[in-house]
Amino acid sequence: MDSETVTGSGSLSPAQQHGTYELLPFVLDPKNIARFDAGQVIIGDRRQYPFEQSFVTCRTVAEVASAIEGMVTQGSGPWLASVNALRILTSDSPDNPATLMADLQQARDLLVSTRPTNTAMMQRLDQMLSIAKQALATNSDVDYAIAASIDEVLLGIYDDYTLRALAMADLIDDGDGILTNCFGEAGVLLSIAFAARQGKDIIVYAPETRPYFQGAKLTAPSLHEMGIKVNLITDNMPAHIMSERKIQKYVTAADLITLDGHVVNKIGTFQNAISAHAHDIPFFAFAWGRDDSKKQRSDIVIEERDAAEIKLALGTATTIDTISARYPAFDITPPNYVSGVVTVHGVASPYNLESLSTW
Amino acid sequence: MDSETVTGSGSLSPAQQHGTYELLPFVLDPKNIARFDAGQVIIGDRRQYPFEQSFVTCRTVAEVASAIEGMVTQGSGPWLASVNALRILTSDSPDNPATLMADLQQARDLLVSTRPTNTAMMQRLDQMLSIAKQALATNSDVDYAIAASIDEVLLGIYDDYTLRALAMADLIDDGDGILTNCFGEAGVLLSIAFAARQGKDIIVYAPETRPYFQGAKLTAPSLHEMGIKVNLITDNMPAHIMSERKIQKYVTAADLITLDGHVVNKIGTFQNAISAHAHDIPFFAFAWGRDDSKKQRSDIVIEERDAAEIKLALGTATTIDTISARYPAFDITPPNYVSGVVTVHGVASPYNLESLSTW
Repeated sequence: MDSETVTGSGSLSPAQQHGTYELLPFVLDPKNIARFDAGQVIIGDRRQYPFEQSFVTCRTVAEVASAIEGMVTQGSGPWLASVNALRILTSDSPDNPATLMADLQQARDLLVSTRPTNTAMMQRLDQMLSIAKQALATNSDVDYAIAASIDEVLLGIYDDYTLRALAMADLIDDGDGILTNCFGEAGVLLSIAFAARQGKDIIVYAPETRPYFQGAKLTAPSLHEMGIKVNLITDNMPAHIMSERKIQKYVTAADLITLDGHVVNKIGTFQNAISAHAHDIPFFAFAWGRDDSKKQRSDIVIEERDAAEIKLALGTATTIDTISARYPAFDITPPNYVSGVVTVHGVASPYNLESLSTW
Repeated sequence: MDSETVTGSGSLSPAQQHGTYELLPFVLDPKNIARFDAGQVIIGDRRQYPFEQSFVTCRTVAEVASAIEGMVTQGSGPWLASVNALRILTSDSPDNPATLMADLQQARDLLVSTRPTNTAMMQRLDQMLSIAKQALATNSDVDYAIAASIDEVLLGIYDDYTLRALAMADLIDDGDGILTNCFGEAGVLLSIAFAARQGKDIIVYAPETRPYFQGAKLTAPSLHEMGIKVNLITDNMPAHIMSERKIQKYVTAADLITLDGHVVNKIGTFQNAISAHAHDIPFFAFAWGRDDSKKQRSDIVIEERDAAEIKLALGTATTIDTISARYPAFDITPPNYVSGVVTVHGVASPYNLESLSTW
């Protein structure tokens, strides 16, 4: 990263300066992820995309929690939907401070319980609760304080996406085949878009990501929309494509990275990393903020979802009811399989993360 | 293998002696795989199983070829369907020797072209053509000769399944979790059933096997029918389940094994073998006869199927039409990832296969 490039254009933010917002595909436009409008939280329905550009409207915090749990959105969607869910309470009842804080705390706990692995939602909710408390203490408008804070956080996140994506783009070579997993969102997609804008010819291999098909439904159509070549494959193919020497880099997002370099991401990330290692292909994982409470592997909570979801493909049963199943939603790639963690300060060693104050 | 056990019961074949036919689940009963009846080939429709026990009836060789290409059956199904397809010709036109041999050759070529990777079908068809030629030369009944030969081959195959499964069962330990891939048919399933009959407590992890879900539709229901504990998982989970230390053996069938120990099997077999190796879990692959024309990796033809099949899950589109895809149907696991090849002579080193005359 050249910090002069980032700060050298006067008032332009990194995201503005590098054209981030113009590059983003439909599903990653912040207003299509989740927004607050007239007392309701409007969440982009990733279950319907790319067949429909539809939205789920939530009138209560419980409805937002249910939408998150039901996979209406995922990745960065839950934090943005959940902080906006707080505004259902703050925009509605600004008059009773004591009740409001209790309600916000209850909302926070309900929302956090929906997806235990990715702690970004919890961190942002706690940040918003702290802002609400401060606003109440100073007799400020709580809803306005939270709304302003969401906007500020959002801009900061897209600036961070931009800084990380620029760092990763530098490591992508002309002619690279890139394997990803699930939906790497703005970090992964922008890094490829920036590299392509530098004139590099790139093709992405996107595993479909069972059971919810995020690779087929989000990653492949988003890359196609961005003008990037993409080949959809099933989740059992990455090592075979590697053996054909068609993959030179493996790049994913991460739902969580521990201070000692364990990468937690959508199930399948780990076995692709093992296959990449066996084929001398480097694996880069995008950081998503730092969580000081997640020091090591034993601090990770892997979400075990309802096994019934494994026995469905787009609503159709794949087997008979009597069959048992398992559905761990995430896996853990230890640092010995991680070539680099993509942070706002550049691509770092997974063994040197604790020394970086921000990721 | 204790050869006395196999040969010590007078006229009983290994399959009879060890109760093989009683252990087999519905889909592996030979008459439910494919049979000839009144001028037609009746093929068990694995696309509908386990929801229906239905059959596809073929009146011509072209219909049998189309059914094989369309995945009505797979694994050992194609050879049994295709040799029975020859009887459509031999039972119908026994009078013109010259025409019959040309017709049989044409049928053989059409059938062989449907699935290029697994050469068992080609080997068996060539064997039947040789028998037909001999019968014509000696003025014998060609149809009778082929029918008798199919019966003989079939009995021999189930005896071989039994010998291999007994060898593998000896290596399965009480308390083992066993990962498989796709549908390992009689070899894999009998080895687990024999081990269970020895009082060993076993649980099988069955990846669903995209895009056709053979793991979900054939493996899991068949094991359940046989009274074996089974957990269905998606194809992106094996390494994570290994990291939980729940898998002690990885056991699959093989569509082809080269003389120098490369195991060709359903896509996904290779990456699971890499993950198994990284977790110190041995990988055993069942041999399926020896093909002297397949000496090394470069002799393997990997079937590349229509990529449109990847973009469907049980008939429903997983993405938009404009997305490109790849569908290599099989992959290749080199011998350094293979702990043992299960043959009729016991579990052999993948580096010592050429010395064994039969597998």
